[in-house]
Amino acid sequence: MKTRTLFIAILLMVTLSLTAQRRVVNMPDIPGYVTLKCDFHMHTVFSDGQVWPTVRVDEAWRDGLDAISVTDHIEYQQKKQYIPTDHNAAWKILQNTARDRNIILVQGTEITRGMPPGHLNALFITDADSLDREGFMEVIETAIGQGAFIQWNHPGWKSQQPDGIPRMYDVHREMIARGWMHGIEFSNEHEFYPLVMDMCRDNKLAVMGNSDIHGVISEEFSAPQYSHRPMTLVFARERTAAALKEALFAGRTAVWHGDLLAGFEENVAPFFRAAVTAGKPFRDDGKTIWFELTNSSDLPMELTGGPEGAPAAVSLPARSSVIIKADRRYLDEPVTYEVSNIITDSNSVLKAEIMPAAN
Amino acid sequence: MKTRTLFIAILLMVTLSLTAQRRVVNMPDIPGYVTLKCDFHMHTVFSDGQVWPTVRVDEAWRDGLDAISVTDHIEYQQKKQYIPTDHNAAWKILQNTARDRNIILVQGTEITRGMPPGHLNALFITDADSLDREGFMEVIETAIGQGAFIQWNHPGWKSQQPDGIPRMYDVHREMIARGWMHGIEFSNEHEFYPLVMDMCRDNKLAVMGNSDIHGVISEEFSAPQYSHRPMTLVFARERTAAALKEALFAGRTAVWHGDLLAGFEENVAPFFRAAVTAGKPFRDDGKTIWFELTNSSDLPMELTGGPEGAPAAVSLPARSSVIIKADRRYLDEPVTYEVSNIITDSNSVLKAEIMPAAN
Amino acid sequence: MKTRTLFIAILLMVTLSLTAQRRVVNMPDIPGYVTLKCDFHMHTVFSDGQVWPTVRVDEAWRDGLDAISVTDHIEYQQKKQYIPTDHNAAWKILQNTARDRNIILVQGTEITRGMPPGHLNALFITDADSLDREGFMEVIETAIGQGAFIQWNHPGWKSQQPDGIPRMYDVHREMIARGWMHGIEFSNEHEFYPLVMDMCRDNKLAVMGNSDIHGVISEEFSAPQYSHRPMTLVFARERTAAALKEALFAGRTAVWHGDLLAGFEENVAPFFRAAVTAGKPFRDDGKTIWFELTNSSDLPMELTGGPEGAPAAVSLPARSSVIIKADRRYLDEPVTYEVSNIITDSNSVLKAEIMPAAN
Amino acid sequence: MKTRTLFIAILLMVTLSLTAQRRVVNMPDIPGYVTLKCDFHMHTVFSDGQVWPTVRVDEAWRDGLDAISVTDHIEYQQKKQYIPTDHNAAWKILQNTARDRNIILVQGTEITRGMPPGHLNALFITDADSLDREGFMEVIETAIGQGAFIQWNHPGWKSQQPDGIPRMYDVHREMIARGWMHGIEFSNEHEFYPLVMDMCRDNKLAVMGNSDIHGVISEEFSAPQYSHRPMTLVFARERTAAALKEALFAGRTAVWHGDLLAGFEENVAPFFRAAVTAGKPFRDDGKTIWFELTNSSDLPMELTGGPEGAPAAVSLPARSSVIIKADRRYLDEPVTYEVSNIITDSNSVLKAEIMPAAN
Repeated sequence: MKTRTLFIAILLMVTLSLTAQRRVVNMPDIPGYVTLKCDFHMHTVFSDGQVWPTVRVDEAWRDGLDAISVTDHIEYQQKKQYIPTDHNAAWKILQNTARDRNIILVQGTEITRGMPPGHLNALFITDADSLDREGFMEVIETAIGQGAFIQWNHPGWKSQQPDGIPRMYDVHREMIARGWMHGIEFSNEHEFYPLVMDMCRDNKLAVMGNSDIHGVISEEFSAPQYSHRPMTLVFARERTAAALKEALFAGRTAVWHGDLLAGFEENVAPFFRAAVTAGKPFRDDGKTIWFELTNSSDLPMELTGGPEGAPAAVSLPARSSVIIKADRRYLDEPVTYEVSNIITDSNSVLKAEIMPAAN
Repeated sequence: MKTRTLFIAILLMVTLSLTAQRRVVNMPDIPGYVTLKCDFHMHTVFSDGQVWPTVRVDEAWRDGLDAISVTDHIEYQQKKQYIPTDHNAAWKILQNTARDRNIILVQGTEITRGMPPGHLNALFITDADSLDREGFMEVIETAIGQGAFIQWNHPGWKSQQPDGIPRMYDVHREMIARGWMHGIEFSNEHEFYPLVMDMCRDNKLAVMGNSDIHGVISEEFSAPQYSHRPMTLVFARERTAAALKEALFAGRTAVWHGDLLAGFEENVAPFFRAAVTAGKPFRDDGKTIWFELTNSSDLPMELTGGPEGAPAAVSLPARSSVIIKADRRYLDEPVTYEVSNIITDSNSVLKAEIMPAAN
Repeated sequence: MKTRTLFIAILLMVTLSLTAQRRVVNMPDIPGYVTLKCDFHMHTVFSDGQVWPTVRVDEAWRDGLDAISVTDHIEYQQKKQYIPTDHNAAWKILQNTARDRNIILVQGTEITRGMPPGHLNALFITDADSLDREGFMEVIETAIGQGAFIQWNHPGWKSQQPDGIPRMYDVHREMIARGWMHGIEFSNEHEFYPLVMDMCRDNKLAVMGNSDIHGVISEEFSAPQYSHRPMTLVFARERTAAALKEALFAGRTAVWHGDLLAGFEENVAPFFRAAVTAGKPFRDDGKTIWFELTNSSDLPMELTGGPEGAPAAVSLPARSSVIIKADRRYLDEPVTYEVSNIITDSNSVLKAEIMPAAN
Repeated sequence: MKTRTLFIAILLMVTLSLTAQRRVVNMPDIPGYVTLKCDFHMHTVFSDGQVWPTVRVDEAWRDGLDAISVTDHIEYQQKKQYIPTDHNAAWKILQNTARDRNIILVQGTEITRGMPPGHLNALFITDADSLDREGFMEVIETAIGQGAFIQWNHPGWKSQQPDGIPRMYDVHREMIARGWMHGIEFSNEHEFYPLVMDMCRDNKLAVMGNSDIHGVISEEFSAPQYSHRPMTLVFARERTAAALKEALFAGRTAVWHGDLLAGFEENVAPFFRAAVTAGKPFRDDGKTIWFELTNSSDLPMELTGGPEGAPAAVSLPARSSVIIKADRRYLDEPVTYEVSNIITDSNSVLKAEIMPAAN
């Protein structure tokens, strides 16, 4: 027996500056590729953001990101009265900071027009000042000339598309026809647009997801439902700027938004298999088997539509295991599920097969 | 630009019963062994605990434990007025529950005397009732006859050892001489006793750490400084009861208590190497190199005593990376540190060597 | 300027046992009455609960409750194999504990039948053993003879009412006719039943809300959406057992469940006025006024249906202020809102009037 | 009995922008005065801070502050390459924002020199540009001419005072002699300097405590030990700029830093009495009485040095109650304690008297 009432501990605490520590993000690599965690849409005081550019690298480092692009508006400089125009300022300020934090910095900017065409990010440009001109297609052509990846931003944003439904206009079709559009935001800040999945599939564009942060990441994405900012996962041959660019143009991406993953089957199916593993049956009573199913990733997995003789639904939280109790036949054939939070187009979710490990 | 004021989300929440989900504990395996997370000291309403035995298995499942022993007192049944004596009750109640949760259940009990000899747990017994007798050495002999592993509990507990300093008495030396003592608690609930490391080293005993929980694990170990209960890590050939027993008698253990790991070098050195990895230099300016150091485990690592040309101290939180900026000579020779929170005896901490991965 | 990298603090922590500290619950008194926070439905190892009775008093103390009743099932003793029947055990065990914690302990039990009549709690009884008999109405009559308050539990519980819709059966009408039913659970554990509001209104019964806890309160009600257990708020003349009983029989209750408050207007309207206060206008530009609205309670207030010239909706979190910007006419007439999370029957919510304080 | 496995809730969430909600800070008023929560030291991109000035008002609103001053360095404009010098910029940018949030905005700046004199804030100035000149005493004289309150900042800051011990130099004595110094920072960011209490007492200066924030408040003060930024509590006749100024010059302040309160007895003694109340004895066995002690404030109270027949030490967390069990004699005489976390000079803590309420 023990009585325990009160104890006193002398605690030596070493608190490092917040930026000293980088979170390990558990979004696994897939066969042949490393999974780069990226955010290609963010603002600073050089347009309508609230922070100095270095804050964006500090946040990216802490959040475990591999690559970012600071994309201030060309056409909207809210603080012009105090901060003179310099479209390349953030890029110049950040290069050393990013290099010393091992963050891949992509030069970018946001081209900001009414809808159509709306807002578009030009990524991998070399000079933002050259994009400060009138004609929209001229601007895009200039960016393309610099090797840019063009991303259409938040196509269902209600300030520009009051019903919230993303729609392609002639200008977008024209851009696609010329090869001048390469990705569309499925997810932006707190919103996502399922129809973008179909647009990307039909036009072979990359699915993108970004924070579009103006304020502070830790404040904007701290509510229980947002433990992380939206990210574009890029499946790249290696962790370099060149491999990142190749993968983006090749469309090897998925979007991690809240507890949702959106991507094409060829990308998200191997991701699921890398994240979720089944153990050996630890009990077998001749009719039924018991085995553990473990999700080592930061993405919860919601399995639904289970077959007869297996659980109809399995909620498999991030970094957790559950026990599956299933009919003995599933020693020889996989249990099939729909992963209801991994969507593959506006109308489909990932199908997954699960089998206990062989004894 | 975007104005963002208010948004409404329809959220579909599936909340499973708490016991449905098992936390993945990131305490890595070491070469040749799996690292079993264990708690060999806990109580229920059958002695002076506050919960029904099944709660202990539910908690163990959620906490990611591999093996537990419920060890109610033989001699102290606080609730006898309402619950008749049955020393084997918890064992009988828990067998099916533990089996269906894939938890290794070790039958145990606490032999409860004044100091000396104090309190001792007999683990791997087969009948607790047979230990309900007067003579202390007789009780131990009976347990040994059942194949028991004998653990001396909280030797520095102030209720029995007012100055808090653990001391061997004749009876303990006698037990050791006969081979009747196999482990000592370095850690118990919120306390730990550094001198136990030396007792264990000198007598080739296993270092043990347990919760000695009477109330509720999630309440007792929830303060910021206690994100997990104290655990005995057992380095076993496989995850079976037999392999667990072999490893315990062989003394292949370490104790995880708060942010502290205590164990002998042969066990904690490979643990450190499994947990901490250095990346390739991502920058090299001819004089200095930059590389990431990543701790994938749940144990923070406090590195101190760094050499010239490297950081004097590095605080490497759990599941995090930091950047090391060091002299170029450390491409060819390791940076040496003391890991100040991994202790190897009452007076020493682990020495570790770190080198960036080859390019 | 300051560089800040690393600091070391020596921290002296005094951690008291969890039970030593009692949370202040900010649910204000109303004119003429103190607001007692109560839970009249909970279980222990003496029926199908998982904890010893004293845990219930410890939890109540920490949660800031004023009164509780432990209501083990008469008819369902899951642990009978190990714990002999004693329907009054919890009551006997808890009397001194509750007295020394300043908790009003109400003797109670749960009468456990199929539907109809379902499960009912008899509160303020004097001997639970006398209720262990066959005939249901006989049992109720015996309880009534002891002065009992009879509460119908979870009338929409799906195990007994598969469609989840609470319905009165003949036996319930008969009980009401005889004056043998005094309250109905609007809320039980994680569920609530809006139709119970109408049943209580039509039959002049008390609206009740309870945890029906079997496991551990801090685990069951810890998810972000459940920061507290369901409680019956009782508006009593003073904080005594007698005043509590008088108020319950008089039906002066409301139920606090998650972010919902359910009660009749005569009780919840003064509650709202005690919780929410408007400051003086701190700005007045001749057309528009600005003033703070402060909610000092633990219940968030969701105001909707605002009039022209005032915000259409106001979300006023617990223990927080917001700024209201409204037409100047609201210096002279109140702004009217519906409080959408304070419900007064199955189809109505509280109407509230707000006016800035006079300058 | 109830089986509870899984439930599904449809949750309608309305998440407001972070700035919409203002925390109620429970630091009570004292007789004759309102307790204003203030921060008089913070930076923006106009010197070496990382955020736009409006962020400081947003943060202050959320944190429940009453008054702030943005005090960018005159002499250190880290971002001059991109942001032209305008010492009054933050003041101009913030006036409307602060007015519409009901925050008292004090114009201020930081005069930034080596030690001595170190760094000083001039508060309540009318033109910061006029302070951009060479001679230190000349600058102070100009500020004084504008009616400034002069605060000496972080006198023990190690970058300027390597041993961390605050010391008065001739220049400081000269300033005091002329009436040109009015307050000293006892607390700055994560540090505090007990000796400042004595300097303030001996020279009749106000004790000040401020965040000196350069980055983001919610990130810098989020660790468990810092749930709030350091604040200067000002005991003012009313919540106006004029009353604030009067109270500051009169020295009616205290500093809230972590779990510490520092102030002179005439201010902190009434604060303690406003925060801590004792209930009536709820039990009296003829020898001993039991009563509740409630702390309704956000400051924990650590009571030590209790007399015979009462608890030696009482830990009374914020917004909580504990039970005091004391000798019956304390119905007639107060129990005396030292409040070890309310310090009144470098060597003394507050003495407090506690008596149960009369029955």
